[in-house]
Amino acid sequence: MNPGSFDFFFDFTSPYSYLAAERIDALAERCGATARWKPILLGAIFKQTGGTPLTALHPWKAQYSIMDFGRSATFLGLPYRHPSRFPQATQNAARALIWLQRNAADRARPFALEVFRTIFVHDGDVSDAATLARIAQPFGLDAAALAAATQDASIKQRLFDNNDEAARREVFGAPTFVLDDGERFWGVDRLPQLEARLRERAA
Amino acid sequence: MNPGSFDFFFDFTSPYSYLAAERIDALAERCGATARWKPILLGAIFKQTGGTPLTALHPWKAQYSIMDFGRSATFLGLPYRHPSRFPQATQNAARALIWLQRNAADRARPFALEVFRTIFVHDGDVSDAATLARIAQPFGLDAAALAAATQDASIKQRLFDNNDEAARREVFGAPTFVLDDGERFWGVDRLPQLEARLRERAA
Repeated sequence: MNPGSFDFFFDFTSPYSYLAAERIDALAERCGATARWKPILLGAIFKQTGGTPLTALHPWKAQYSIMDFGRSATFLGLPYRHPSRFPQATQNAARALIWLQRNAADRARPFALEVFRTIFVHDGDVSDAATLARIAQPFGLDAAALAAATQDASIKQRLFDNNDEAARREVFGAPTFVLDDGERFWGVDRLPQLEARLRERAA
Repeated sequence: MNPGSFDFFFDFTSPYSYLAAERIDALAERCGATARWKPILLGAIFKQTGGTPLTALHPWKAQYSIMDFGRSATFLGLPYRHPSRFPQATQNAARALIWLQRNAADRARPFALEVFRTIFVHDGDVSDAATLARIAQPFGLDAAALAAATQDASIKQRLFDNNDEAARREVFGAPTFVLDDGERFWGVDRLPQLEARLRERAA
């Protein structure tokens, strides 16, 4: 295993996870490292840690957050449109990604980026089965295969396992990057610090 | 008034406010702007917005935060030692700063930085009257003048006014930078975005 490899825990419905997803592989490559993409369900994490979803925040903070998603995107050179349906149920998108990670690994990350862009650029709703099928089709997962994947017991279990692993690493938000020694970096705004640490380790 | 001037709302007991205080004036100068330092009491803001102090966070997040204070300091090239007494009551330090802002403006920021460093570098407790007096003395505020300043009705009122102004600008955390058009930047990790915006405006 690459000593610079690290976990990238994310939920498809997390705006800062989208921004991080668009940048993390290039960052890792610059540092000779590899990101292991691990979808999780943030709702389960919030239940464990008392986290507050955006929609339950005080209005000053909620409105600031929505503004900040777009401003942070602009700062990173990325498009952003705040979704009409937010947050979205992402377990089926996560299961489709896990299927691809197992069966067609080279298509997994492009699919994941397409899911993120559907939500945060094209205002699509990936909890809608037809929308998810439309995204998955070009990646070799047709509607029947997608339906099977999202109901597959071992894939469901893997998503639970991802969440359990995130909890073991004390992940309380997304995106969170976890190095193999357990060091955590929470938030897309910590990418510069993550990069500095990976460069230190490579040196 | 400088069109690039902006408010810098902070609480002396806020670690990220300390980090921002050490960097904000140089950032503003690079952009031809000026930061207006405005001490507030974060406790009052949290009461209004339902904010959670560090000590009330889930342990995963609290422990991460303490680690992140130090790591963020290192990333910014600043020393950091997490205070033994945390958080600290900062109303008297804030009042002393307001007195200096009124009566010896050129000494106000160096005093403020000394307060921050006492807390976050030298493990001092600025809620302790003797400690605060020792900090204030070299800035021309002896023990008697300090005692008078911290009990002065108009200075107390100014601290309330700062908090009211922060609330009107929908400030929910510290540090927060607010431009004259109301745009907010929350957190030391938004300094790069603040700098980009100030440069845009100067251009």
